[in-house]
Amino acid sequence: MPGNGEMMPDHKNHDRRSYILTLSCPNRPGIVAAISHALFELGGDIAGAQQFDERESRIFFMRVVFSVPADGIARGGLDVALAQVAARFGMKWSLRENPRPTRTVIMVSRFDHCLVDLLYRWRIGELAIEPVAIIANHPRQTYAHIDLDGIAFHYLPVTAATRGEQEARIADIVRETEAELVVLARYMQILSDGMSEWLAGRCINIHHSFLPGFKGARPYHQAFARGVKLIGATAHFVTPDLDEGPIIEQDVERITHADSPDDLIRKGRDIERRVLARAVRYFTECRVIPNGHKTIVFNP
Amino acid sequence: MPGNGEMMPDHKNHDRRSYILTLSCPNRPGIVAAISHALFELGGDIAGAQQFDERESRIFFMRVVFSVPADGIARGGLDVALAQVAARFGMKWSLRENPRPTRTVIMVSRFDHCLVDLLYRWRIGELAIEPVAIIANHPRQTYAHIDLDGIAFHYLPVTAATRGEQEARIADIVRETEAELVVLARYMQILSDGMSEWLAGRCINIHHSFLPGFKGARPYHQAFARGVKLIGATAHFVTPDLDEGPIIEQDVERITHADSPDDLIRKGRDIERRVLARAVRYFTECRVIPNGHKTIVFNP
Amino acid sequence: MPGNGEMMPDHKNHDRRSYILTLSCPNRPGIVAAISHALFELGGDIAGAQQFDERESRIFFMRVVFSVPADGIARGGLDVALAQVAARFGMKWSLRENPRPTRTVIMVSRFDHCLVDLLYRWRIGELAIEPVAIIANHPRQTYAHIDLDGIAFHYLPVTAATRGEQEARIADIVRETEAELVVLARYMQILSDGMSEWLAGRCINIHHSFLPGFKGARPYHQAFARGVKLIGATAHFVTPDLDEGPIIEQDVERITHADSPDDLIRKGRDIERRVLARAVRYFTECRVIPNGHKTIVFNP
Amino acid sequence: MPGNGEMMPDHKNHDRRSYILTLSCPNRPGIVAAISHALFELGGDIAGAQQFDERESRIFFMRVVFSVPADGIARGGLDVALAQVAARFGMKWSLRENPRPTRTVIMVSRFDHCLVDLLYRWRIGELAIEPVAIIANHPRQTYAHIDLDGIAFHYLPVTAATRGEQEARIADIVRETEAELVVLARYMQILSDGMSEWLAGRCINIHHSFLPGFKGARPYHQAFARGVKLIGATAHFVTPDLDEGPIIEQDVERITHADSPDDLIRKGRDIERRVLARAVRYFTECRVIPNGHKTIVFNP
Repeated sequence: MPGNGEMMPDHKNHDRRSYILTLSCPNRPGIVAAISHALFELGGDIAGAQQFDERESRIFFMRVVFSVPADGIARGGLDVALAQVAARFGMKWSLRENPRPTRTVIMVSRFDHCLVDLLYRWRIGELAIEPVAIIANHPRQTYAHIDLDGIAFHYLPVTAATRGEQEARIADIVRETEAELVVLARYMQILSDGMSEWLAGRCINIHHSFLPGFKGARPYHQAFARGVKLIGATAHFVTPDLDEGPIIEQDVERITHADSPDDLIRKGRDIERRVLARAVRYFTECRVIPNGHKTIVFNP
Repeated sequence: MPGNGEMMPDHKNHDRRSYILTLSCPNRPGIVAAISHALFELGGDIAGAQQFDERESRIFFMRVVFSVPADGIARGGLDVALAQVAARFGMKWSLRENPRPTRTVIMVSRFDHCLVDLLYRWRIGELAIEPVAIIANHPRQTYAHIDLDGIAFHYLPVTAATRGEQEARIADIVRETEAELVVLARYMQILSDGMSEWLAGRCINIHHSFLPGFKGARPYHQAFARGVKLIGATAHFVTPDLDEGPIIEQDVERITHADSPDDLIRKGRDIERRVLARAVRYFTECRVIPNGHKTIVFNP
Repeated sequence: MPGNGEMMPDHKNHDRRSYILTLSCPNRPGIVAAISHALFELGGDIAGAQQFDERESRIFFMRVVFSVPADGIARGGLDVALAQVAARFGMKWSLRENPRPTRTVIMVSRFDHCLVDLLYRWRIGELAIEPVAIIANHPRQTYAHIDLDGIAFHYLPVTAATRGEQEARIADIVRETEAELVVLARYMQILSDGMSEWLAGRCINIHHSFLPGFKGARPYHQAFARGVKLIGATAHFVTPDLDEGPIIEQDVERITHADSPDDLIRKGRDIERRVLARAVRYFTECRVIPNGHKTIVFNP
Repeated sequence: MPGNGEMMPDHKNHDRRSYILTLSCPNRPGIVAAISHALFELGGDIAGAQQFDERESRIFFMRVVFSVPADGIARGGLDVALAQVAARFGMKWSLRENPRPTRTVIMVSRFDHCLVDLLYRWRIGELAIEPVAIIANHPRQTYAHIDLDGIAFHYLPVTAATRGEQEARIADIVRETEAELVVLARYMQILSDGMSEWLAGRCINIHHSFLPGFKGARPYHQAFARGVKLIGATAHFVTPDLDEGPIIEQDVERITHADSPDDLIRKGRDIERRVLARAVRYFTECRVIPNGHKTIVFNP
């Protein structure tokens, strides 16, 4: 389901299986040659590739979309062959069938615009997620108008006293559903450091400001008070360091002196949902690779 | 419900009634003075005003948001007083309680992203519409996942042979619901000239291209074929002259050579829904005044 | 020279004189009526008006573009008549002939992209400034390729020890040239608190970040380090509180992980020059009214 | 000078020579492997690579930035080695030292904002062009304020009767200067079909509209008459089919009903110069590959 011309030439027939390979390793000559040679030997056809040479850390990052004949080498064989190349270069790597929906837990509080938006994009086949659970700290009737279509809904209210227990429940759900991604779709509770660590690299939050401006609570009111002329939203990986996680996507919209805090909140909803949807899509298409406290995003 | 600081100073109390006045007339000195004086005499407090002096046609356009004491002059008295001023200047004018939801018929074909979006914005109180009917040329089950919340749904399929009859039904619905606005939310049937004329100034269509580029059918495929680097969408009043109606709002998004027609359609959905939602909002807030084949949009 | 339809109906003939009136006062009913009535009585024709009702402070702001017959009331008469209205409402007000170029001092350090841009816009008549002096802390040959066209150039180098003396020289120049506006066009020296106070409301700086993100030195390097996905620039009034002055205009551009700090600096130049040029234009057209630590910008 | 991390790892030392390879060929498995293997064998280190698989035409496009040791294989050896790979796959290919300024002829008419902008970017080292000639159909004094810094200036006025002769002169200049690129920087004369053909793929025009809207003359006046809400500019390769050449870059800006044609022209200047500058930069960095009547732009 990746966009931007990355499907195998004729994705209607079933003669080929497609994969997305992502990798990173210390940079040195020959990486691209080794990978592309290995894929060629395995019958692979490269439909798209992106790479980035991080000059500070001398780390090389790559994303390759390729296909093999359906009756060709099996997944296991691919793994073994790629492991050999990886060993030579000290690569961290990951191989994913393409397309395969990302098993996703969506967490939400009272404002449901991001939840509604993600579910709609999922329903029409735009977003390659498989929502395996929705976790809310508000009861089901808060979202009465949403057709959850059988997705498990978990009402997990939380207080300071019950946070530990509630997070344990969340962790259970993530584990039991074999979720690959947790999306904080305007979930307004702060995760504990332990939880954040445990979800590292697989938990995306939407913050309703253009970070690093207006960290913390009520960012639209902060923006109103400061008198900025643009407001924004930021999708980032969750880390224990609140609002400091690696940024995946941001966008902004113009405001004026005449916009009240309520106007900012209204305009913000539009920014939040499109920024979060893009971040989730990039994740499902293996376009995002964490790089310390930053990200590589192999944007289409 | 108008944004951008236009509510009366304390819109929580009920001591004042708020109105939106829009007017146009041949330009000559004294119009603003006459209007503001009349409102002042009536106990009115102007919360916001916008004006435009069209230099080609010498037509003056104005929009005034004002309030009067709740126990002050009645609506009828306002009408009479304003009619007097209007007569002196040859004004076309309109007065509307503020806020009062706009009775709206939404028409839709197979793609429901704009419908879903408008209903969501209505439900959370962002958009001051009151959906009085949904008319579709596909059956209810096409939109099975949408909670219509009691809004009347009319399945009115149409063929070349039945168009006249179908449009008569639509006209009946518009009349019976006393709809003030008809939104073609990706309704893919062309209205007859008669129907377009009858709905003049109160029917908004979303065209999925950046007009005047790519008129007609399959605009995203046209855009793909031409190799443009941005695609867009256009909300406009419907007129008999297809895709030539007065433009209310437009927006664009960047694409690349790597985007397939399907990618364009996907990106286009996001543009379409935000452009249409803005146009509808401007209409409900009396911000849009047709001006021949163009529009005045007193943008917030 | 104001854009957006604000010239008198026929600005080619010389039958009318045009003015821009800006005012602010505690809000109460009747202000618009009083102003428009007074102007009407004086033979004035309102070509454009904008107003804003600041709900927190209950301050009302207004900008009116109007014209009077060339052989009508003299400037002095206007002043007296407006002073009468102003007294009734406790208005702060200002009246300016329209168009009249704003006498402007431009200050610059090594990077001259904003200077070059402002001078170009001035030369082709786009920007209604009259550059009365250029002050640089680098010598004339740094800008050897720029045709200053007779504008006085002052080389005022500065060290910690000579700052006071240098600022006194700057103040002399501002005073002697009767400058109405001082533009810090990438002038990389921090003005003293006294200087900032003295220039309050008439000194615009361009900061090379999207404030309030990345205050202080080397903002593009800060942005690179943080891994943001958009960078920006901010034009603001200078105040003693560095990078906290009232914001006039901001804009952003998209960046990616692949952009080096040098790429950010390059993209930033484009943002800086357009943001600063817009802010200066708004100032020359009396569109900017300081409002505490925020601004009203009656944007066209 | 290419941005976005594509310089060799340590571009300050002179131990390596850098090149940009662009190629296209019918798509089949093994292309990337063959190229990357060949480069590896030659001692090459790939700093960046981008590829695109055009699914309609089954043409594969690639751009590779790589370096070889300064004391390694000579340019001639590279050519021979690459020619061998190219022959196997039927490649069209091109190899260019990186960075090497693009020898550029700039053509201009009365409006010089794009000329001034390109020269400024060149002067500060932002744009890797070497302006070898400026050709104008207005005399030198039209551009009196521009420091041409020794660039040859050719005043070549043109009438219907002298067009053939004038174009012959232009062709001579292009040939004698060994220009690689001709930029029509608001050159308002239409090139003959023969001239357009002769310059195919190396002549970039800036059209002052968002094509395909508003082809032909006075596009801003067309846009004003139509009442669009955004205006744009388009940089495209020149072809005999006027305003139909392959599009390289486009951008837009928001306008309102209040903008006069003069306001559109003013806003348009900003769009034009940034769109043209980007297109020229992409060209100089070998990011643009014509693909029939479209382009591949390996955008950073």
